[in-house]
Amino acid sequence: MCQLLGMNANTPTDVMFSFTGLATRAQEHKDGFGIAFFEDRGVRLFVDHYSARQSPVAELLQRCPIRSQNVIAHIRKATQGHTALENTHPFMRELWGRYWVFAHNGDLKGFEPRLHGAFRPVGDTDSERAFCWLMQELAKAHASVPALPELTRTLGELMPQLHARGTFNCLLSNGQALWAHGSTRLYWLQRRHPFRATRLRDEDLTVDFAQLTTPQDRVAVIATEPLTADEEWTAFEPGELRMFIDGAPA
Amino acid sequence: MCQLLGMNANTPTDVMFSFTGLATRAQEHKDGFGIAFFEDRGVRLFVDHYSARQSPVAELLQRCPIRSQNVIAHIRKATQGHTALENTHPFMRELWGRYWVFAHNGDLKGFEPRLHGAFRPVGDTDSERAFCWLMQELAKAHASVPALPELTRTLGELMPQLHARGTFNCLLSNGQALWAHGSTRLYWLQRRHPFRATRLRDEDLTVDFAQLTTPQDRVAVIATEPLTADEEWTAFEPGELRMFIDGAPA
Repeated sequence: MCQLLGMNANTPTDVMFSFTGLATRAQEHKDGFGIAFFEDRGVRLFVDHYSARQSPVAELLQRCPIRSQNVIAHIRKATQGHTALENTHPFMRELWGRYWVFAHNGDLKGFEPRLHGAFRPVGDTDSERAFCWLMQELAKAHASVPALPELTRTLGELMPQLHARGTFNCLLSNGQALWAHGSTRLYWLQRRHPFRATRLRDEDLTVDFAQLTTPQDRVAVIATEPLTADEEWTAFEPGELRMFIDGAPA
Repeated sequence: MCQLLGMNANTPTDVMFSFTGLATRAQEHKDGFGIAFFEDRGVRLFVDHYSARQSPVAELLQRCPIRSQNVIAHIRKATQGHTALENTHPFMRELWGRYWVFAHNGDLKGFEPRLHGAFRPVGDTDSERAFCWLMQELAKAHASVPALPELTRTLGELMPQLHARGTFNCLLSNGQALWAHGSTRLYWLQRRHPFRATRLRDEDLTVDFAQLTTPQDRVAVIATEPLTADEEWTAFEPGELRMFIDGAPA
């Protein structure tokens, strides 16, 4: 199984404390990693088929952190599809003049949707097929970009159809908001004023967010497993979809 | 004006000698750079709105070169669109289950094509509009991915329509081949056996390709200006389109 990490914040925020927590688990998830940072409408997408522990790209990101309001990261243990760049999450497509970024944890066995629209998988994973189907169905449902609550409503109709086909924990963002769907294992928390120090669960690393934030800052973090030992993480119910915007659940 | 660099090779090849030649010119092209490397069907796309001289990403690429058969790089001097990540070339879209990468040098003044299809610009450059129009028209011309000579024929009908609107030097690749269209300034050369040492024009750097290659290797390099002082570069005619495949002009 793969590991997901999402971040949604109301101000450009450094995600590397959480990414370090994720990379610690890369030892057993060694079939590549990827991370996408939105900067306004633009995206920086780094993918590598090396593990997040060995990759020079991951090392660069640790050294030169990128601040972003919406981040989606994924470390991969291959279940379907061979280990190749085109099979490495997150995946990206353009719809309605916005980039969309998607990462999936789970298995959609034998999911072969009819893809008659403008979105076709480049690799051979069930995850990319599911993303292309989501984009196709969103494009069918709305002629142009709808308001965010509308989008959440449409995703709330589409995602259960994927959830019904297997395990479907996923993260999706268009740079305006971040959607997370829980199936078997997904947790979230919000950090806001008063900030305090917290410690990674899998690594001897502590950060005092009070030193790094202003009272207005608000950050939501979503992950396959709680990344910190001393914070309250909330588990997603099976089939639960949440939109995060400006660092808060909507 | 911006600077383009393309590479097409018959074996995964390190482009960093040429990229160094390009980055040397980044002093006066300081509004961002980008470089895309195909690895089979997958793409690594690095974009930065720092110049190729200052960017930590460019420094990483110098340190850990990525070998690829198709590379497109661009350093930008903004003429249209503000300096933002979403305006940084190369641009990428998916069509027929393949990623397509595009970079443009020039100006298409007032080019506002009807984009009714599945490709919309995310940023506000004439270049991305031209790319979206090209993708839309390719998708209209062929129901699924055609043979490469067919693609070249269709591009040979489409690109003159862009060339007619202004200055249109461009590079396009889907990982199988690389197309280059010359308008005002574009040069190419082929390196093959017997390889020899060559020296960058703008920097005191020499590489002896004979040490780094096998007799079977073949590489085509396309650039806005000749990058080396001691090799024969061929200028594109205005309106000339060339497909490069396996390191050779087709």
